[in-house]
Amino acid sequence: MLLTADARGVYPIAPTPFFDDGRVDTASIDRLVDFYLQIGATGITVLGQLGEAPKLAHAESVDIARRMIRRAPQLPVIVGVSAPGFAPMRELTQEVMAAGAAGVMIAPPNTLRTDEQIVGYYRQAVDAIGADVPFVLQDYPLTFSVQMTPAVIRRIVDELPSCVMLKHEDWPGLEKISALRQWEREGSMRHIAILCGNNGLFLDYEMERGADGANTGYAFPDMLCDVVRLSATGEREAAHDLFDAHLPLLRYEQQPGVGLAVRKYLLMRRGLMTSAAMRKPAAALTATARAEVEHLLGRLARHDPRARLGAG
Amino acid sequence: MLLTADARGVYPIAPTPFFDDGRVDTASIDRLVDFYLQIGATGITVLGQLGEAPKLAHAESVDIARRMIRRAPQLPVIVGVSAPGFAPMRELTQEVMAAGAAGVMIAPPNTLRTDEQIVGYYRQAVDAIGADVPFVLQDYPLTFSVQMTPAVIRRIVDELPSCVMLKHEDWPGLEKISALRQWEREGSMRHIAILCGNNGLFLDYEMERGADGANTGYAFPDMLCDVVRLSATGEREAAHDLFDAHLPLLRYEQQPGVGLAVRKYLLMRRGLMTSAAMRKPAAALTATARAEVEHLLGRLARHDPRARLGAG
Amino acid sequence: MLLTADARGVYPIAPTPFFDDGRVDTASIDRLVDFYLQIGATGITVLGQLGEAPKLAHAESVDIARRMIRRAPQLPVIVGVSAPGFAPMRELTQEVMAAGAAGVMIAPPNTLRTDEQIVGYYRQAVDAIGADVPFVLQDYPLTFSVQMTPAVIRRIVDELPSCVMLKHEDWPGLEKISALRQWEREGSMRHIAILCGNNGLFLDYEMERGADGANTGYAFPDMLCDVVRLSATGEREAAHDLFDAHLPLLRYEQQPGVGLAVRKYLLMRRGLMTSAAMRKPAAALTATARAEVEHLLGRLARHDPRARLGAG
Amino acid sequence: MLLTADARGVYPIAPTPFFDDGRVDTASIDRLVDFYLQIGATGITVLGQLGEAPKLAHAESVDIARRMIRRAPQLPVIVGVSAPGFAPMRELTQEVMAAGAAGVMIAPPNTLRTDEQIVGYYRQAVDAIGADVPFVLQDYPLTFSVQMTPAVIRRIVDELPSCVMLKHEDWPGLEKISALRQWEREGSMRHIAILCGNNGLFLDYEMERGADGANTGYAFPDMLCDVVRLSATGEREAAHDLFDAHLPLLRYEQQPGVGLAVRKYLLMRRGLMTSAAMRKPAAALTATARAEVEHLLGRLARHDPRARLGAG
Repeated sequence: MLLTADARGVYPIAPTPFFDDGRVDTASIDRLVDFYLQIGATGITVLGQLGEAPKLAHAESVDIARRMIRRAPQLPVIVGVSAPGFAPMRELTQEVMAAGAAGVMIAPPNTLRTDEQIVGYYRQAVDAIGADVPFVLQDYPLTFSVQMTPAVIRRIVDELPSCVMLKHEDWPGLEKISALRQWEREGSMRHIAILCGNNGLFLDYEMERGADGANTGYAFPDMLCDVVRLSATGEREAAHDLFDAHLPLLRYEQQPGVGLAVRKYLLMRRGLMTSAAMRKPAAALTATARAEVEHLLGRLARHDPRARLGAG
Repeated sequence: MLLTADARGVYPIAPTPFFDDGRVDTASIDRLVDFYLQIGATGITVLGQLGEAPKLAHAESVDIARRMIRRAPQLPVIVGVSAPGFAPMRELTQEVMAAGAAGVMIAPPNTLRTDEQIVGYYRQAVDAIGADVPFVLQDYPLTFSVQMTPAVIRRIVDELPSCVMLKHEDWPGLEKISALRQWEREGSMRHIAILCGNNGLFLDYEMERGADGANTGYAFPDMLCDVVRLSATGEREAAHDLFDAHLPLLRYEQQPGVGLAVRKYLLMRRGLMTSAAMRKPAAALTATARAEVEHLLGRLARHDPRARLGAG
Repeated sequence: MLLTADARGVYPIAPTPFFDDGRVDTASIDRLVDFYLQIGATGITVLGQLGEAPKLAHAESVDIARRMIRRAPQLPVIVGVSAPGFAPMRELTQEVMAAGAAGVMIAPPNTLRTDEQIVGYYRQAVDAIGADVPFVLQDYPLTFSVQMTPAVIRRIVDELPSCVMLKHEDWPGLEKISALRQWEREGSMRHIAILCGNNGLFLDYEMERGADGANTGYAFPDMLCDVVRLSATGEREAAHDLFDAHLPLLRYEQQPGVGLAVRKYLLMRRGLMTSAAMRKPAAALTATARAEVEHLLGRLARHDPRARLGAG
Repeated sequence: MLLTADARGVYPIAPTPFFDDGRVDTASIDRLVDFYLQIGATGITVLGQLGEAPKLAHAESVDIARRMIRRAPQLPVIVGVSAPGFAPMRELTQEVMAAGAAGVMIAPPNTLRTDEQIVGYYRQAVDAIGADVPFVLQDYPLTFSVQMTPAVIRRIVDELPSCVMLKHEDWPGLEKISALRQWEREGSMRHIAILCGNNGLFLDYEMERGADGANTGYAFPDMLCDVVRLSATGEREAAHDLFDAHLPLLRYEQQPGVGLAVRKYLLMRRGLMTSAAMRKPAAALTATARAEVEHLLGRLARHDPRARLGAG
């Protein structure tokens, strides 16, 4: 089951659960996957930027990907393979594709500047991993400092048929979606899937601009599934009502650096992970921040019963 | 009336109103100032990053500052004087202080990296403008790429008595407020005013962390005044309710690049500016974006009557 | 006398001479200009990156440019007008062109990333200064962090007829000259003058690649004139011999930050400036560094009598 | 044999030799090591920035390091272990230390900005690799965009006893060496070895400032050995004469990006490597550039017989 340009829905970015002592918590991996299945996710992405991939030894990375793939054989699993060199990128790609991954995700190294450099990098990446491996183009300037214009994305899509999805997390990014979809309508660009990241901060309007869904890690992926579904069925105000109820918490989780700690804390509070532990280096959640998250949960619970989690 | 470390409340960042043909619209300046007075703002900041300062000729800048100062003699006016060199910074400072400004705001040039460089830059800036001119330290890494740790801010505050206010817009930034206030309590740092920027995206919790108010340009500064007041009087949930109602629109306005176009459009829709025009170079607001802003306004109007603006 | 694409030879970058107390030293300006005339320079550039332009008040900048223009009516004078906004850029351009400047030089702001942004910036700059003002495109990624591919330069040249010269200081940059000249030969790009900067660190081979000369501030511009002339008349090894004799000192002067202090010290030692003073902020030359410069001068004097300057 | 703060002399940065088809060329590794021994190198560094480390699969990296260590049991071998995460850094460190490496070299990730972040990163790195593994602090802002003040280096040295060497390649950097040595003399900083990189562009004066030698990859490491020796024995002018003769070529090889292609070409021409091939992605050496290198070699051969290499 390979990833195609027809992908849609919600591909949650799975965090890597650890025990407090730093070991990988495989039972929580299973629980997360089961949860993604149950809420109607249409795929999973692992070992992304916020999956703490760089903190994993090579063998651990492969084990985690393989475990997810086996646990949810009906869900396409995308594996983040970004690496400082093409040799380790190829190694990891070959192992996870052999294990049944649906495709890989590649972020640009933060040294790329010119359009030529960006297109050249993806050309070489495809050369390294093989043109038969579907890949997701990750466009996240806030984190990677690489700015891709719509024209650069079109050049990559044109030149590299194995590019099947855009993980859209430019900010601001609404006009970028409109530009790409306009080119598709005009026939000047091949269709690709556009799934939105950046914690879903603009998912409400991104769907209306033509996105196919979400590919992000917000601790309530069930909300993302609902918003994508409501948007698809034309229930616009209902989609916004639900989204707006989550926005105060979602914004809090979207903070760079500390965001993953918030996310893991929430997933633990929801019973989906045994511990909120992160491997070092990690930004800690202070007691004050934890109280703020609990306050946000309490306020959210007035609108969404899924946020009623008992005492924190 | 010079700015002191006891400043608090809301200092809206005033945009520069233009006519469609690019001329400065002085009548709208007056209307904005009158509005700030009426809603209970405690000061004004002009010629900031989003006041289109670099697009103004020197004489225009001075005229605008002078006009605001004269229109609201009871309000302290802070003038942005950031410049690529200390000679123009000194020139502008001397002119606006002579015209009655309460102080100036200085952003760091985006080439600063080390702690030494940052502290050294502000030392030289004070040398240039004079130690008797109160200044606001602008800490906005997202835009300026300069990262100031709490320790660096303390060094600046310790060494430079004319630093009386922090325009806090680090992101994430809640722990930074807590760290600075903790040092004040311990007596290891002199008290300074902390007013929050970044469009107020975290104003709700920033107030609870010890901020003294807001110093930002969101198109509903009356909401900022209310939240600061409710927070000060301990009406916590009421503050959050109002803030959360505005968050979907506020988030939309906070987008880099396009944000100022949204803000000017909203101020025009509120009748506070004749035109939403920006001087070139400027990001335009597409018809789709405008419709999204109207949609957000409509939804906000259900909670806040000030957003009921008639047909767009 | 307007600058054209046929410019060639050496346009020294003139420093701004100050007295020890920081006042502009007009007598030294005259002496520098007379010296440039005497050594066969074909033009002058003032108020560049290393002319301490940001440290000058507006009126000072205009006075300095005007003084140079009057002192050497037979030499085209290019004036640096880079500014954070188009309004001050236009103001300064209009004043210096009215005073008789041959053209202006524009560096890109260090926030530009994509090809679109770079081309768009120069389009707007021409819009601001007027399409009738010849301008020099400054390409200096080491200092400005903006990377222009040859294709981007061609787009600017194609679209903006008033772009007549490239100040080439990319590093490495030899292949860029070859690429541009190849396009000219093929007829796919209009001819422009290419004058090399970066303190002349690769001038020897840049001339062989097709550059038209030098546009840089090394304290021995007479050497630059000789190398350009020897290269033009085919005396290759003589050009390299002279260049190589200067390279140890030239490399020392090319250091970022401290380089201008070295340059001013050398110009003072050569009797061309009364003082080596810089306006603040300025990197000081330590006693050890000064001794190293004297040591380099002494060694150079064995090959080039112009470096025999008496006791330091 | 572990690396200590008493290290001195020349530690060439060994490139990784490949055959034209991309396989690792082990015979050339042996030849390089034998050459380093023969010219009096006092150590070797492998898998550095210019050893194409990111292009190697994990097993290849370990094999190369092990082969070098075995070939030259009398030379301390430093292994570059910089990695995007601490887990792979630890893995590689443990393997190469078990194989007999003398220590490791760690470059900072290019996202570090503040002093706190830099010190914190090295603290965590030592935590990951173990406090018993001597490490080299690589200070190369031109490539890594991380600026370490002398004060930050001192903090790292003070706090982390396993920091035994500075690979000094700041630019400009002479005053940094003086500052660190001054602190050592004053007793306010523990002594560490300072070996200079940046292709040796300032090695002549760096030795006079107090450096202990060179740790760089210039294709004539025998010249580096001579300059370090002549400098140590007080033969100042002889050191400069030899250095200056090499400077035109050395400068050419120091160009970012294309420099490694120049270096490999020269090592092939010297008979030390079978091929100049690089693994992709790689900047190619054009025919013109090759001719320039041959021209520089020919000119150098007039002063240094080691550059007489026969027809190119």
